[in-house]
Parts: sequence; C-alpha cells; structure tokens
Amino acid sequence: MENYLVIITFVCSLIAIGFAAIMAARVLRTSEGTDLMKKISNSIKRGANAYLKRQYSIVAVFFAVMFVVLGVMAFAKLLDPCVPFAFITGGFFSGLSGFVGMKIATASNARTANACRTGLNKGLRIAFSAGSVMGFTVVGLGLLDISVWYFILRFLLHYEAAQITGAMLTFGMGASSMALFARVGGGIFTKAADVGADLVGKVEAGIPEDDERNPAVIADNVGDNVGDVAGMGADLYESYVGSVISAAALGVAAFAGDFRAMALPMILASIGVIASVIGSFFVRTGESTDQKTLLKALRRGTNLSAIFIAVISYFLVRFVLGAEMWGFYVAILAGLIAGVAIGFTTEYYTSDTYKPTKNLADTSETGSATIIIGGLGLGMMSTVAPILIISVCVLVAYFVSGGATFATRGLYGVALAAVGMLSTLGITLATDAYGPVADNAGGIAQMAGLEPEVRERTDALDSLGNTTAATGKGFAIGAAALTALALIASYIDKLRTIDPEFHLDISIMNPVVLIGLFIGACLPFVFAALTMQSVGRAAQAVVIEVRRQFREIVGIMDGKNEPDYARCVDLCTKASLREMVLPTIIAIVVPVAVGLLMGAEAIVGLLAGATATGFLLAIFMSNSGGAWDNAKKYIESGTHGGKGGSQHKSAVVGDTVGDPFKDTSGPAINILIKLLSMVSIVFAGLILQFNLIGFIIG
Amino acid sequence: MENYLVIITFVCSLIAIGFAAIMAARVLRTSEGTDLMKKISNSIKRGANAYLKRQYSIVAVFFAVMFVVLGVMAFAKLLDPCVPFAFITGGFFSGLSGFVGMKIATASNARTANACRTGLNKGLRIAFSAGSVMGFTVVGLGLLDISVWYFILRFLLHYEAAQITGAMLTFGMGASSMALFARVGGGIFTKAADVGADLVGKVEAGIPEDDERNPAVIADNVGDNVGDVAGMGADLYESYVGSVISAAALGVAAFAGDFRAMALPMILASIGVIASVIGSFFVRTGESTDQKTLLKALRRGTNLSAIFIAVISYFLVRFVLGAEMWGFYVAILAGLIAGVAIGFTTEYYTSDTYKPTKNLADTSETGSATIIIGGLGLGMMSTVAPILIISVCVLVAYFVSGGATFATRGLYGVALAAVGMLSTLGITLATDAYGPVADNAGGIAQMAGLEPEVRERTDALDSLGNTTAATGKGFAIGAAALTALALIASYIDKLRTIDPEFHLDISIMNPVVLIGLFIGACLPFVFAALTMQSVGRAAQAVVIEVRRQFREIVGIMDGKNEPDYARCVDLCTKASLREMVLPTIIAIVVPVAVGLLMGAEAIVGLLAGATATGFLLAIFMSNSGGAWDNAKKYIESGTHGGKGGSQHKSAVVGDTVGDPFKDTSGPAINILIKLLSMVSIVFAGLILQFNLIGFIIG
Repeated sequence: MENYLVIITFVCSLIAIGFAAIMAARVLRTSEGTDLMKKISNSIKRGANAYLKRQYSIVAVFFAVMFVVLGVMAFAKLLDPCVPFAFITGGFFSGLSGFVGMKIATASNARTANACRTGLNKGLRIAFSAGSVMGFTVVGLGLLDISVWYFILRFLLHYEAAQITGAMLTFGMGASSMALFARVGGGIFTKAADVGADLVGKVEAGIPEDDERNPAVIADNVGDNVGDVAGMGADLYESYVGSVISAAALGVAAFAGDFRAMALPMILASIGVIASVIGSFFVRTGESTDQKTLLKALRRGTNLSAIFIAVISYFLVRFVLGAEMWGFYVAILAGLIAGVAIGFTTEYYTSDTYKPTKNLADTSETGSATIIIGGLGLGMMSTVAPILIISVCVLVAYFVSGGATFATRGLYGVALAAVGMLSTLGITLATDAYGPVADNAGGIAQMAGLEPEVRERTDALDSLGNTTAATGKGFAIGAAALTALALIASYIDKLRTIDPEFHLDISIMNPVVLIGLFIGACLPFVFAALTMQSVGRAAQAVVIEVRRQFREIVGIMDGKNEPDYARCVDLCTKASLREMVLPTIIAIVVPVAVGLLMGAEAIVGLLAGATATGFLLAIFMSNSGGAWDNAKKYIESGTHGGKGGSQHKSAVVGDTVGDPFKDTSGPAINILIKLLSMVSIVFAGLILQFNLIGFIIG
Repeated sequence: MENYLVIITFVCSLIAIGFAAIMAARVLRTSEGTDLMKKISNSIKRGANAYLKRQYSIVAVFFAVMFVVLGVMAFAKLLDPCVPFAFITGGFFSGLSGFVGMKIATASNARTANACRTGLNKGLRIAFSAGSVMGFTVVGLGLLDISVWYFILRFLLHYEAAQITGAMLTFGMGASSMALFARVGGGIFTKAADVGADLVGKVEAGIPEDDERNPAVIADNVGDNVGDVAGMGADLYESYVGSVISAAALGVAAFAGDFRAMALPMILASIGVIASVIGSFFVRTGESTDQKTLLKALRRGTNLSAIFIAVISYFLVRFVLGAEMWGFYVAILAGLIAGVAIGFTTEYYTSDTYKPTKNLADTSETGSATIIIGGLGLGMMSTVAPILIISVCVLVAYFVSGGATFATRGLYGVALAAVGMLSTLGITLATDAYGPVADNAGGIAQMAGLEPEVRERTDALDSLGNTTAATGKGFAIGAAALTALALIASYIDKLRTIDPEFHLDISIMNPVVLIGLFIGACLPFVFAALTMQSVGRAAQAVVIEVRRQFREIVGIMDGKNEPDYARCVDLCTKASLREMVLPTIIAIVVPVAVGLLMGAEAIVGLLAGATATGFLLAIFMSNSGGAWDNAKKYIESGTHGGKGGSQHKSAVVGDTVGDPFKDTSGPAINILIKLLSMVSIVFAGLILQFNLIGFIIG
C-alpha cells in the first residue's frame, strides 16, 4: 500500500512545480512599465545574478570538497555509498529553490510597481503570484527530491527502511549547508547594503529612502532579493525537507522498519500542497489600502489551507496507520495549532497595533539608549510564550502518541507535529515571500518617479508584508525547534543502529553530556556574534564607499550625475561572500570535533544545548528586530513627533541595530540548530569508532 | 579529627571579622575633610541608609512569609524542623554583609577624597582598607554561620552528616534570596540614577559628570553604595557560602557520610582567610598614577594569596583525606587556575589596552547603531573562552577526582574546584569593593570643588577599580557556574536520599527533562528582560523628574539654588523596591511550579538549562557592558575626537545600554542560577510526593 501512497508524493511535487510554472507565466505576461522602470529593474537583476553566480561558485568548491570527504568515508565503509550523492542533490535543490525565487522576484518587482499604477488588487495579485512561485517551487522541489530518492533507494537498490532514511538525512545535511551559506551570505549582503545606505543616505545626507541619488540604493534592492528571497528560499527548503525526513526516520524507528510510518509524513506534506493550491485561489482584495482588509485577504488563504489539512490528516492517519493510531493525528494538530500560536505571539510582540511595540516607541522619548534597552528587553521577554507553546506541543505530541510506553513513538509524534506545522508551507511561504517583491516595487516606484499613489499602494503591500513575515518567522522558528528535537532523536537512533551494544549514557549529570550542553549552548551566541560583526564590518565598508562617492563624484546630489551603483553592489558581494564561509565551517567542524574529543554522548548534550539557546536567541533577535522596525514605522506614521524628530532619530538607531538581528543572525541560527544534528548523524559512525575520551577512560 | 578541624573554621571566621574591625578602625580614625565634604558625604549616607532601611523592611515581610511556609512544611514533616531557622540566618547574614559594606563604604568616600589631597598612596590605603572591611566581613560572617550551625547540628542535635548539609543548604537558599533582592533592587537603583543623571545632565544640559547642579547626582552616588557595595556584598556572601556547603553536601554523598569530606571545603575556605590576610599586607603603592603600577600593587596581594592557597591546600587534602586522594588537590588547583583564566579573558574583552575594546571604539565612527551592534557581538563572542575554560575545569576536576568510577566523587571534585576559585575571596573582594569607594570619592572631590589633582588621583583609583571589578566578575561568574553544577548534583542526591526507590530518568531525551531544559534556558532571558525593563522604567522616571527640576527650580544652572536631591533619591528608592519583588518571586515559584506540574526530573532539566544560558548571558552582558564603558573612557582619553565629539556621543549611548547589562542583569542572573537549585533542594520532598505528571501517567 505504502508504495502506491508515495506515488502521491511524486505527483504532488509535479503539481506544485506545475502550479509554480503557471503562476510564473501569469506574472511574466504583464508589462514591466516604463523604460526607466525596466532600466532600474535590470540593474537589480544584474546585481542579483552576479551575486548568486559568485556565491554558487564558492559554494561549489565547498560541495566538491565535502563530496570528496564523504566519498572517502564511504569508500572506507564508514558511510553508505549513496551519501555523497544525496548530499549533493540536497544542496543542489536548496540552491535551486533560492535561485528560482530570486529570478521570479527580480522579474516581478517592476511588474508589481506597474500593476499598482492601475490598482491595489492588481499589484497584490502580481506580488502574491511571485510569492507563490517561490512557495510552490520550494515544496515542489522538496517533494521531488524526496520521492525520487525514495524510488531509487527502494526499488532500484532495494534498501531497507532504515537505510533509506539514513541516506535521506544526508540530503538534509546538503540542503542545510546550502541554506546556511545562502542565509548568512544573503543576510550579510542585504543588511550591509541597507545599514550602509541608511547611515549615510538618510542620517548624514538627509535624502529619503530609495532615493536614486544614494549610491547604495541598487545594492539595497539587490539585497532584498538575494537575502530575503534567495536566502529564505534555501532556508525553508531545508526546514521543509528536514522536518519530513526526520519524521520519516523516526517513523521507521518507532514501527520497526514499517514503510507506512515512513510514508506518512511524506503524504502529509503532499496533501499540504493540495491544501495550499486551493487556499491560494482565495487570496484577492478590493481597492482599500486598509491593512486589516489586506491582511484578511491573505489570511483567508492560509486559514483555509490549514483547516483543510486539519480535516484531511485525520483520515490520512486513519488510512495509513489505522484508526487506533489517532494519537498521531492529535500530534499533527498540536503542531498546526502551535505554529499558529507562535505566529500570533510574534505578531503581538512586533506589530504596532499591540502594546509592546507602542511602549517601545514611547522609549524613544528619552533617546537611543532607552529604545535599545527597551527593544532588547522586549525581545528577551518575547521568548516566554513560544517556549511554553513549544513545551506544551512537545508534551502533548509525545504522550498522546504513546511516548510513555514507547519512547520512539512519542518522538515520532513530535516529528509529525513539525511536519504538521510546515505542511501548508506552499501558501505561508507565498504570503511571506511576496513582501520583498512589494518592497522592491516601492523602491522602483520611488526611483522611477511614479505618481505618489503608486508608492502608497506599494507601501501598503510592503507594510503588510512585514506582518506576514513576522508570522512566517514564528512558524519557521517553531518548526525548526521541533525538527531539531526530532533530529536529536534520529541521531540517537542512528547510534543504536550502528552499534546496538553501545551503552549510551545521556544523563544530564554525565559530565561529558553536561560539557557538551555548555558548548552547544554557546554555539548560537558565537553564530549571532559572527554574523552581526560581519554585517557591522561590511556596512562600515559601504558607509566609507558611499561617503567617498558623495565627496568625489560631483553632481550626485543635484541629480546631474549618476552614482556608481555597481561598485556598491560589488562591495557588498565581496564582503558577504568572504564573511559567509567561517560560520558554515564552524557549524560542520564543531560537532565533529566535540565528538572526536568527547565521544558520541557529548554530541547529544551539544545538540540539546544548541537547540535550546538557538531557539531562544532566534526568537529574541527576530522579535527585537521586528519591534524596532515597526516602532520606527509607527513614529513615521505621525506619533512621537513623526518623521525627522529626535525620537525618530532614536528609533532609526533601534531599527539599524535590529536589521542584522532579524534578517541575518536570527534566521541563520534557525538553520544552524538543524545542520548541527544532521552533521552529527552523518558522522555518527566515525565518532563511535574514534574518540579521545573513550580512548583515555577506556 | 574532623571535629577539631572545624574549630579552625570558627577561629578563622573570628580572625576575618577581627581583621575587618581593625581595618574599619583604621579608616574611621582619619578625617572626612572640609565641612562641605562632610555635608555631601552625609547626604549620601542618609540616602543609602534610608534605602536599605526600606529595603530590609520589605525583605522582612518576604522572610516572614517564607518562614511560615517552611514552618508549615516542617510541621507536616516535609522538611527538617531546622530548615525555617536556617533559612532566616542565611538571609540575615547575607543582608548584614551588605549592610556592613555599605556602612564602611559611605564612611570612607569623603575620607578617601581627603586622603587623596595628601597623596595617591594614602588614598589607595583608605579605599583598599574599606574594601577589605567588606571582603573580610563577607567571608567572616559566612564561615561564622557555617561553623555555628555545624556545632549546633552536630553536637547539640546529633544530626548525621547528610542531615547537616541538608539544613545548611537551606541557609544557602536564605542567603541567595536576600542576595537576589539586594542585587536586583540595588542594581536597579544605581543604574536608574546613573542613566537618568547622564541622559539629562550630560547629554541634554551639557554639565559634567558628578556636577552638583545635577539633581540626580546624590542619587547616583547613593546608588554606587547600595548597588555596587551592598548588593555585591550580599551577592558574594551567597556565592561563598553556596560553594562551601554544596561541596560539603557532595562530600557527604561521595564518602558515605564521612565528616572529613564535609569538613574539607570549610577548612579550605578558612585557610583562604589566612591567605587573604597575608596577601593584603602587600598592597601598597608609590605616587605614580600610572595604571600599570597601581594594578601591580593590587595584583601583588591577590597573587600572593593564591600562591599561598595553592601550596597549603596540597597538604590540607593530604592531611584530611589522605595522600591517595591527591586528585582532589588537582581539582582545587584547576578551580584556582580557571578563576584566574576567566578573569583574564574578562579583562581581555573589556580593557582598552586590548584589541576588542579598541575595535569597539572604532565603530563609534559610524554612529550609535554600529557601536551597539559591535558591543553586542563582542559580548556574545566573549562567552567562548570562559565556556571552554569551565569545560576543561569541570572535566579535569571530575575525572581526576575519580568520577569515572564514582560519579559522586567526580562531582565533589567539581564542587571543590568552586571552593578553590573562591577561597581567596577575602582579598579579591577587597580589591573589587574598593572601586565604588574611589568612585564616590571622585564625586565628592568634584562636588566639593577640591583641587584638580585630587580628582586626577581618585580617577586613577576609580579606573583601576574598573579593571579589578572585571576580573572579580569573571571569578564570580565562573564560581557561580561550578557551584550551580554542584548544587544540581546535590539536588539529585537529595532526591535519592529522600526516596532511594525512585527511578530517576534524567536522560536528555526524556521529554519532561527536555522541556524542563527549555524552560530553564528561558529563565535567564526573562530575568535579564525584567531587570533591564525595570531600569528603563525607573530611569525614565528619573529623567522626567530631573527635567522638571531644571525647569521649575530657578537658579539651579548658575548655582544660586540647590536642586532637590532627596526627591531623586526617594524616587529611585521607590522604583527599585517596587521592581525588585517580581524577579525574586519568579526565581522561587518557577522551579516549584515546574516540579509540581512535571515532576522532579523536569527540575534537573530546568536547572541545567538555566545554568547553561545563565552562565552565557551573564558573561555576555557583563562583558558587553564593560567594553562599552571602557570604549567610552578610551575615547574620552583623546582618541576618536575625544570628549564631546559625535563619536563620544555614540559611545555614551553604548555605555548607557551597558549600564544595566553589567551592573543589574548580569550579576542578578549569577545569583538566580544558584537560587533555583537551592529552592529545588529545599522543596524536593514536596515535589517527589505531589506532582501532576506522575499522577496522570502513573
């Protein structure tokens, strides 16, 4: 039965890709507008293409090296021979997701601006269609990779269930590595350009945002595409695939190699595609730029999809595993609800319709220092609700799935909760990814000197994008935490599979575990520090370059001469690519090094520590950043002295600090916690055989 | 034998107190200087006294309530009948330590300023003597409490070893509760006054620091005494006592109730008193205000003490436990070395003689936002070295003490490492506590209009105080982490003592443990958020009041009229006392609530999570704060445009954000992680009997 079921996965992957293609065709049919708009859009395209080309060529070197390393290990029988190939495909599809997203986003920005000249609904349709291309490409490629590998491993190579999931976890590792490169590199690019453009343009020269006289303005717009689009695409590809395969792996562990338990998460994700397609037909709006109406239009689509999946998955669980296994359905539901709940807390803490961000705006009255203190406090405090939600979700999913009797079933339940949370990714990502498109459209409208009402419309779309992005981030972080937990369980399961005799003492009071926990807990801090410092350094370089252009190129300010945009793009490209390498290498080397020094048990501590603080730091940083951003916008809307007042200046400082928080460090940590586990799983065999502490203590 | 040995503890406690009394007498003999100096000093005394009086009356209510709660539990046989009394004495002595420190500090500030009129060495002697009074009072009262209770429990009540340490852990909890009140309340007071005074005085009105025209200037000076002195005294009393009794408790567990293992940490601490007394005779300097010379003078004392203890403890371990137990000596040595090493990393990251702070000062060139990003990155990065140092220290202490064979011995070794680290607290605290005295002396010199060279000398002393404070903080944080680990072990031991049949599953993959870990990891974030927000709120109140006084009281700025200092003091007092209650209650309620809901195992996760992130956050926040402070001072010394430039303004923003980081939130987290464990230990019996999850799952 389960073999036919998995055909569903393949079919749904094709449906997703087909739907993405239709959406893309619909977008590309429309006009890009005036010549000036085309010219600006082309500059952005050129910059984004150049960046990605160079990024992929660096990443290719990394993948080539890893391929050789894994190949040697496979040759030495430490790994399955499929592993190196699976690793490559994961990386390839993750990169491809980002690439397609970027292509469509850069093709849609001018089109969205142009559509906004006719009306708001037209603009929304184009931007949302562009977002859908990205959303459905991500889920489509994810399911394609999973189902094709499944067919190869099961029917061509006749692998057993555990071997199949083992190989699949490797393409998870490939996808995560690629995602980390894309998120870190793109995140540094976009924020360096943004911060640099703001610091000199807005603060020093006093010109508005997206002004064509700012030499960093094109770099800023390129950044939106390579960071917020390509980075996010690769990132969510990784989350999606990671949650499905970790659930599949635990299903195999929980049901002694039963293929049905392995198929369930795949089919659940497939049904999610259908749910998302249906939901996306319901996204439309009138001509009111009122945020609530617009938000309702988007929410209608996501809510319908969620309800659809909530209903269908009951029958799915019943059909695949049997009626007595209803507990797993509750686990899936718990995941769905937890995702929505975390999304809501994120919105509560970061939207200016609620108290926290309004209070934060108040602190601008006493200067930059108090708004910084307030924002940091807000972000730290905002970790409480998500932690409690995830805690309840884990406990419910675990115990309702029978974890009290069979621990592995409980863990399988937790993993299914993560899949449940991400099942409607097709549409949630569409509502999320359309934001940067609208942002870019606004930039083009400004630079091309379109009518003010166009900018108003793009601003309305953009502002809405901030809210949906906040919700989307909540989902991504929640799913990352659950997936990371599932992956830790998979790691332990892998150890038991490799050596059933191995006595695993993962008690917290085992000093090796405890030290692992300490080191793991430290890793997200290191990551946050490295990425923030990278943004700081790159932004300083941009500041110096922009100041130089203002000084040396005469006539920029009165519009008689064009600044050298390409040079800023180039600077950001070089800086971000240079800075992205170290974090990724750390993420791969540290768990292996800790394992080789302190053994396989230390890694369990490391993963648990990294997941706990990673989750906390990611929420803290995302929400602080989001709240600062919206507190600034709230002031710009006319409170606390409005734009240009001293309070606004303080709020800009907050927003600038928040930029790397929310768009570089936070999302990167999200990927980190999963990559660490996947690396540990892939290298488990090596570590069990060779480790220093085992050698010393015996 | 061990009974006679503990007499040493009693004798050494008297030596410490006697030494403190002699030092106090020496300070009080000297003159307070001119009438104006006396008047200013009296205002500070009055404010500090009023604050402490009100603080103690609030705290008294808390202790009364807790006494009743514990009394009822003791009556219901859930606790030992000594527990309520032990709890009270711990709180009393902790508060007394802070009180004595505050008294001597406020008595010495004018005297130090006056002595600086004659020469630098005289000033150093007075300030250092005042610090010594505090240092030796803390260790003296700590050992007194321990030895007196030991005599009562052992010889009057004839308790067994495990019962004795059980009761002693309760006074640890009393001390920690008091310390948390003192640290949080004092920390909010001092930083609200400091931030408020700076924001209006320095930034808005443009008058220098410590200017008598600033209405918040007296509050600022009071804050140094109630926060940096009284708060720190209570805090370190708690650390000191906590490390000794947790080691004693683990000694009992490791050696099956052998009193010798229990006595060892007490005697080690006692020898530390002698070492500190000897060391303090070597602190003297010439007339050069050169930082290196001054630092050398202080370091000579602390280094000599450390060497002394390093040598003597070898013979101590040999004599008390026997020559074959040399491993514990190595553990003690590991603790000593780790303390020094962490102190050095703290200095490296926060002193402007090294690269990190210099680089941070560079970021002021591009504004407030970049210096904030830079400082946060620096602080996060600075967690790596201490984590690795503590990790190595724990592994060495554990395995060298025989942990591979007897886990409890290994944990006893870890606890002894903490005692080793804190053994010379008498002198390290003296070098630390003298800082605020010098700071106050500078304020008085400024306000009393003394000659510029006096201020130069007090500044030299003060600046040195920043460096020693950084080192001291490193010690305090390192010892807190080790003590917290020891306390977790004590908690588990307590569970086993209460119910030897209880099957304790503290595997990380037990979902209850894992969720406990998540919640525990979140607690330090909550604490940091609460305390920062409290400072923010209180500081805003001060800002508004200071602005009001400048506006309404005519003639402040030209010196014709005196501002209403008392009102600012009163405002800070009220605000800080109001804000200090919630954090302490959370620290006590959360572990009990988690235990009652999810059982005794969840608490192990909670404690481990809180210790890991608490350690990281405490280091991060202390070091970010210290680096911002010193980057500002570095700029003031004439780099990057010097005082008053735009870079300096950016650096002031950094410093202001850093204030609550390093002096409120960071130290409070340090206490939190130990208080959580102690609360868990005291309530272990209750939680084992009643908990929801056990009830549901069976």
